[in-house]
Amino acid sequence: MENIASIIDILGTIAFAISGVITATKKRMDLFGILIIATVTSVGGGTLRDLLIGKSPVSWLLDSTFVYIIVLTTIVGIIFRKQLRYVRRSLFLFDTIGIALYTVTGVEIALLINLDPVICVALGTITACFGGVIRDILCNEIPVIFRKEIYASACIAGGALYVILHHYGIAPGINAILSGLLVVIIRTLAVIYEVQLPSIYSKSEL
Amino acid sequence: MENIASIIDILGTIAFAISGVITATKKRMDLFGILIIATVTSVGGGTLRDLLIGKSPVSWLLDSTFVYIIVLTTIVGIIFRKQLRYVRRSLFLFDTIGIALYTVTGVEIALLINLDPVICVALGTITACFGGVIRDILCNEIPVIFRKEIYASACIAGGALYVILHHYGIAPGINAILSGLLVVIIRTLAVIYEVQLPSIYSKSEL
Amino acid sequence: MENIASIIDILGTIAFAISGVITATKKRMDLFGILIIATVTSVGGGTLRDLLIGKSPVSWLLDSTFVYIIVLTTIVGIIFRKQLRYVRRSLFLFDTIGIALYTVTGVEIALLINLDPVICVALGTITACFGGVIRDILCNEIPVIFRKEIYASACIAGGALYVILHHYGIAPGINAILSGLLVVIIRTLAVIYEVQLPSIYSKSEL
Repeated sequence: MENIASIIDILGTIAFAISGVITATKKRMDLFGILIIATVTSVGGGTLRDLLIGKSPVSWLLDSTFVYIIVLTTIVGIIFRKQLRYVRRSLFLFDTIGIALYTVTGVEIALLINLDPVICVALGTITACFGGVIRDILCNEIPVIFRKEIYASACIAGGALYVILHHYGIAPGINAILSGLLVVIIRTLAVIYEVQLPSIYSKSEL
Repeated sequence: MENIASIIDILGTIAFAISGVITATKKRMDLFGILIIATVTSVGGGTLRDLLIGKSPVSWLLDSTFVYIIVLTTIVGIIFRKQLRYVRRSLFLFDTIGIALYTVTGVEIALLINLDPVICVALGTITACFGGVIRDILCNEIPVIFRKEIYASACIAGGALYVILHHYGIAPGINAILSGLLVVIIRTLAVIYEVQLPSIYSKSEL
Repeated sequence: MENIASIIDILGTIAFAISGVITATKKRMDLFGILIIATVTSVGGGTLRDLLIGKSPVSWLLDSTFVYIIVLTTIVGIIFRKQLRYVRRSLFLFDTIGIALYTVTGVEIALLINLDPVICVALGTITACFGGVIRDILCNEIPVIFRKEIYASACIAGGALYVILHHYGIAPGINAILSGLLVVIIRTLAVIYEVQLPSIYSKSEL
């Protein structure tokens, strides 16, 4: 169980780093820029969560494994950047599993320090989504999840399920699997059926 | 007195959240994006202040009332977004009272931990202004207060008055009212008479 | 030695503040905007480092000297902004000495709390570079160091040297001079010979 979580964590980190490499190379950044964007995409959400709850030093400072993984992923990603478009489907899988795991981790940490249920869900969502938000800001784009992704809604639903099951005394391991699965299912269905959040804008506004 | 402060605090939160809704809907964000922008506009300044002084968890994690107010305001704001332009005048009042309160709160917290007077004024101004700054950055705009608003100057003046009156032993309650009023008066007069900071640019530069 | 470090620190602060003034006036910001950009450029990197390692309140809150220096530099910089282009060469010197010092300081602080060597180098680089990154984001630009500056690579090299010499027991004072010199030399040579990071993009991609 512990091992599976670690493997998923590593796959998630890789998927997030690659999404950073893709965005940064589109902006024609240099090596250093790409590395920073890959790092920020991977560790940004967890870092913001740690800052908000006052956990210091923030997690990635204490475990350089992830920094090595990100550096390696960036180098491999740059070399094979033209092939990346062909593996986007597999990347999507890693990425989705990654946000599911990050959501669950974020909610768990927030529950541990007895925050309000709504705040716990918010922290889970921040952990999963804000790496991508910071990536987009550093690339001078309006964050993509603010405009057309069902991404965040999947995290909110999964986070809420975790809080509810936790309230009814479900064991953390089973809870993590069920809530994580919900994130994966919603996100996958949303992409397959091209579901977006219902638009609040009338046609004349667009 | 306590009650009045709470009511002003809530009105300020609502006004800030609505300014977030207005900015986010202009950018055609989806529901989730609008909610994030509304939240960031409301709690961003206080969050940055808390991070800088090391207060953790940051305030809004410990009081979900504000999260509920922001969610509710966002929903109501989206439904009535076309009518929002007609109430901008009343919003302006809430907003101005809000920044006055945020300035005073920020300065008070900084004085409590014995920071230098200049730093106290800076923290009051950050509390009042940086929610809007983060809102504009997330919306991919240069922050409006860096370009044409007398906003920040009003906060600096009110913050400075608070520090001076505090130095002369004026009671916090009276001090808050006087300093807050100064913020409100400067901001209101600036808007009525369309005062901006004196331009440092010659005509040939613009 | 202590005095020299203080003088270099002040010169670095001035150089960073001026680079903020130059960027902000290009964007036609008002007085307040220019002041904020100058401040953020000067203290942004150290602030981010302090937040990440959990040092609070962050350094500049505890020493208002730097705030006064920044305010003064901003005023002088605005008055003489047309002349600034003629002194850019001297500014370059201060700026380079500044990033050398900031890199060394960042690495030293990270070593003190026993972080992994790679993380120490990362924190040194963040201290030196992220003031400029935040400046560019607030000005709605893609950070310049992500695209064409050898800036960050010089910091990484100097930071790595510091960690290595520290490992071999070299005294901090001598280590700081040697590692700082490496940053200065790489950056200066890079600018003189117009060296950039090798481009990862083929001509057809640009």
